[in-house]
Amino acid sequence: MKQSKFPPGWDEQRVQRVLSHYESQAEDEAVAEDEAARDIETKFAKDVPVVSTSSAYRYEEDVPILIPGINDDHVELIETQKKNRNWKGYVLPLPNCTTTGLAITMKPLYDTYGAKKVIMTSMQAISGAGRSPGVSALDVTDNLIPYIPKEEGKVRVETAKILGKLKDGKIVPADIRVSCTCTRVPVIDGHTESVFVETSKVAKLDDVKHTISEFSDHISVTGLPSAPKDYLVVHEDPTRPQPRIDRQINDGMTTSIGRLEEDTIFDNGIKYVLFSHNKKMGSAKGAVLLAEMLYKKGKI
Amino acid sequence: MKQSKFPPGWDEQRVQRVLSHYESQAEDEAVAEDEAARDIETKFAKDVPVVSTSSAYRYEEDVPILIPGINDDHVELIETQKKNRNWKGYVLPLPNCTTTGLAITMKPLYDTYGAKKVIMTSMQAISGAGRSPGVSALDVTDNLIPYIPKEEGKVRVETAKILGKLKDGKIVPADIRVSCTCTRVPVIDGHTESVFVETSKVAKLDDVKHTISEFSDHISVTGLPSAPKDYLVVHEDPTRPQPRIDRQINDGMTTSIGRLEEDTIFDNGIKYVLFSHNKKMGSAKGAVLLAEMLYKKGKI
Amino acid sequence: MKQSKFPPGWDEQRVQRVLSHYESQAEDEAVAEDEAARDIETKFAKDVPVVSTSSAYRYEEDVPILIPGINDDHVELIETQKKNRNWKGYVLPLPNCTTTGLAITMKPLYDTYGAKKVIMTSMQAISGAGRSPGVSALDVTDNLIPYIPKEEGKVRVETAKILGKLKDGKIVPADIRVSCTCTRVPVIDGHTESVFVETSKVAKLDDVKHTISEFSDHISVTGLPSAPKDYLVVHEDPTRPQPRIDRQINDGMTTSIGRLEEDTIFDNGIKYVLFSHNKKMGSAKGAVLLAEMLYKKGKI
Amino acid sequence: MKQSKFPPGWDEQRVQRVLSHYESQAEDEAVAEDEAARDIETKFAKDVPVVSTSSAYRYEEDVPILIPGINDDHVELIETQKKNRNWKGYVLPLPNCTTTGLAITMKPLYDTYGAKKVIMTSMQAISGAGRSPGVSALDVTDNLIPYIPKEEGKVRVETAKILGKLKDGKIVPADIRVSCTCTRVPVIDGHTESVFVETSKVAKLDDVKHTISEFSDHISVTGLPSAPKDYLVVHEDPTRPQPRIDRQINDGMTTSIGRLEEDTIFDNGIKYVLFSHNKKMGSAKGAVLLAEMLYKKGKI
Repeated sequence: MKQSKFPPGWDEQRVQRVLSHYESQAEDEAVAEDEAARDIETKFAKDVPVVSTSSAYRYEEDVPILIPGINDDHVELIETQKKNRNWKGYVLPLPNCTTTGLAITMKPLYDTYGAKKVIMTSMQAISGAGRSPGVSALDVTDNLIPYIPKEEGKVRVETAKILGKLKDGKIVPADIRVSCTCTRVPVIDGHTESVFVETSKVAKLDDVKHTISEFSDHISVTGLPSAPKDYLVVHEDPTRPQPRIDRQINDGMTTSIGRLEEDTIFDNGIKYVLFSHNKKMGSAKGAVLLAEMLYKKGKI
Repeated sequence: MKQSKFPPGWDEQRVQRVLSHYESQAEDEAVAEDEAARDIETKFAKDVPVVSTSSAYRYEEDVPILIPGINDDHVELIETQKKNRNWKGYVLPLPNCTTTGLAITMKPLYDTYGAKKVIMTSMQAISGAGRSPGVSALDVTDNLIPYIPKEEGKVRVETAKILGKLKDGKIVPADIRVSCTCTRVPVIDGHTESVFVETSKVAKLDDVKHTISEFSDHISVTGLPSAPKDYLVVHEDPTRPQPRIDRQINDGMTTSIGRLEEDTIFDNGIKYVLFSHNKKMGSAKGAVLLAEMLYKKGKI
Repeated sequence: MKQSKFPPGWDEQRVQRVLSHYESQAEDEAVAEDEAARDIETKFAKDVPVVSTSSAYRYEEDVPILIPGINDDHVELIETQKKNRNWKGYVLPLPNCTTTGLAITMKPLYDTYGAKKVIMTSMQAISGAGRSPGVSALDVTDNLIPYIPKEEGKVRVETAKILGKLKDGKIVPADIRVSCTCTRVPVIDGHTESVFVETSKVAKLDDVKHTISEFSDHISVTGLPSAPKDYLVVHEDPTRPQPRIDRQINDGMTTSIGRLEEDTIFDNGIKYVLFSHNKKMGSAKGAVLLAEMLYKKGKI
Repeated sequence: MKQSKFPPGWDEQRVQRVLSHYESQAEDEAVAEDEAARDIETKFAKDVPVVSTSSAYRYEEDVPILIPGINDDHVELIETQKKNRNWKGYVLPLPNCTTTGLAITMKPLYDTYGAKKVIMTSMQAISGAGRSPGVSALDVTDNLIPYIPKEEGKVRVETAKILGKLKDGKIVPADIRVSCTCTRVPVIDGHTESVFVETSKVAKLDDVKHTISEFSDHISVTGLPSAPKDYLVVHEDPTRPQPRIDRQINDGMTTSIGRLEEDTIFDNGIKYVLFSHNKKMGSAKGAVLLAEMLYKKGKI
């Protein structure tokens, strides 16, 4: 009985309303990430499930950070959350849009080869800053800005939490050291990240490609309405990924990897460049996909 | 006797002609870096000193790669070169414009703290590709390209060679592992590089700042006509360096460092963002400064 | 009998091949517009119909310049052309992509109110220059170029010819004086044009809007596969048309008008800003639409 | 006696303070143009001269709009203003930065050939909108916006007033019809304007060039500290003026003209493209030049 999957007072129309709310919030992601978000989310979570793109609850012990297809099993932590807080609903945040691409691409690598160190430099789109205040054209035309307040700390903490294990009602972060520098470049949509990874085991190039491809083919969200045809793609063309091209693949829901190489700087290492659409998989439409996954799991 | 510092047939006018030749070549750096460059340089070097921005001779054993103020002592290798090749002149190349900023900023760090690993991601200006063919506006508007052919290999080899030691008529490269990803961004002039360094010794933030500042104050080229007032600057403002602002400092001859932080990912490590003007210190005007240094040393 | 509409040796596959040829040429429009184009077109036209985006034949007396939906009746001139040249096929060129938007928007105005003078300033996309050589990012970043070779002369002649009348085997150009300045701006796709028109009769704002809307609703090409839902749209929002938004309307086949106002500088006058997609309605896909129209008329 | 040229309580230091105030306001021109400006200016003008870049007082009958070197004689209207308002000081506004280039280039043309109609399309820099709120990078990257609120009305009224005659304590506007469309393009600094003029008399191209050149050579402000070496330059290179190049000429104080041609659309007409630096001659530094001129005239 489909209807029973909704909490009391909820139905498909209501889900649609909530989802379209997130869709419309895409441009204002930055704005949502503040004190106000926490108040709103707290108020709602008392009664209903809240899928959030804000950072308000991300770092609480009983709150998982979810990327559908990556750490779906962490969803179970919401039961602890509901109990702890005596809520009928829950808060389930997505990660920061810069974490999204990194965590997605690291998942198959971490699970297969382990990862000691991850070093990342992002080249982030102006739409990531939203509209209020957003990025002034005076600041970013013929320029780049090598700093995005608070971003690097978020990426460090969130990546380890997402790749971590749910154990005894808690998430044990992955034993992985992440360092990053986040920059803003004159690109409208889509974050590009240059990544260097020290793996725990030998990671041969062909094996890595195979691992990623296998992972992408067996992703849990396959078939959900908002899930892309390809969850991850690996480009052989060294000039890819490029934001203006790759942002259009599967309506921004595919994460692209290019420049994949073994990296001799580490005893075992690989390097690559990833692209993730900050306004699609990285926020609004990723939230929709998460809601679809929750619905399928009977959590909405 | 000033005049005696020129090789036979040379005088100041001739030096000026050569220098202005390089000045005018600024935009065509990329073009010069090919087969043709080697032929021209070989022909000239038989008789006269050749200061070059091309890569044709950079990787030969008896050819140093010079950054004035960084590895001036390597100049002596040209005596070996002249003997080996039976030339009256010599070829003395500058590094690739992407190496320049990295080697300059690494010099005080390497000398003081040692360096095991250097991981760099560059965001390079379109002027670095010259004009023929150069970068099409169709390719780089609202976009970035995560690949610059051959660039990464050059940076790896050149950085170790510049930071190396001249010993028994050879340069022993620095024992340093360099990895990098080079990208092209929609910025007109000036390369920005995000750098992560594993140092050999503890490098406390305040000590590092002091080291860089001391180094900049006691640079060998100080006082030469093309030398900047500040060889290196460290910005406390986290939004710096920015290409559109920092390219104007001291007419592009200053290398800027910002976002300087200890990096916990390594046992000992620091991270920073650098800016170097690819068409000034990184090529044409850097060549002029090198010529000035050679003239002062009596090598022209 | 559908088959009979093709000249001997032609069938639908062949038409598709020709059409896809033009589709792929979109980026190279500029290149096609030269001597080579004339040779190729001449060779083909001896046997088969040639729909062309090049300017090679545009200004010949027995060659119409066609915009499907605007001057379809000029197609009949190809019979004269075939007779004159003893060809089995013909050459039927589209206008320059900058003329397209101007002629389309002027058509209903000219037919209804007459037009004495048309003054236009274009802000053209970089894709209009094709790829070889195309526009260098060094030239157009943070810049505009107030000159496009030969463009202004083309617009003047072509606009009058398209709005003219076919009479006794010739096209009598519209009695209209056109002046324009063509500039290149840092926009990827789509030409924007600022237009001032001295009409012959009083043109009240509401009447003009009605005229345009009526015209758009009764366009001849409606229903053809490549025809847009709306041939012309008039925006009330004064910030429209904008290239990044309007280029997406109906896959670039709609011509957008905004800022429509009565202009007191003339005794009777209006002013407006138009947007036309140079790579869609203005070239490749416009050629496809023309071929569809010719097919429907039994001319292919 | 130099000192006597200052009103009571004023000295050179004070002038400097006021000037540097305007210099710093450059980026906030837009902000200054509102209600607040009127209040501040009114308060100050009771006691001291106020040179303003705001529009608050521009359209009052006893307030001239001044461009130093263009309509210096209008300065005398401030005596009427002081009497009318019983002020010891006065308000003397510069025009809108888009009017500046148009009025400067029209001055020699209007005085020599008369002008019936002026039709202008501007392509304005993002810095013209100031910083609060300014232009969002999301709005103007790979885009242009064909509308700037209130701008066109200002240009129409101000151009006629500046070119007008001071007569009997009033300015009689020039009998000239101006129409324009103002757009915002992705250019950092400097407004480009495409202009079509119907002159009253025959204006041969060579005569027009001579007229402009003569005018530029005999400008009243020549020799003042902020006056440019060339007040107006006419480019023969059809690709000029270009913002990125022309904004650097004489530190933004020169107005550039290019694409100068006779325009056959009018019985007598010319067309051209002009460039004027909105943040230099068009606002802050233009204000400084005006103050210098007032000082020379003994009005400060």
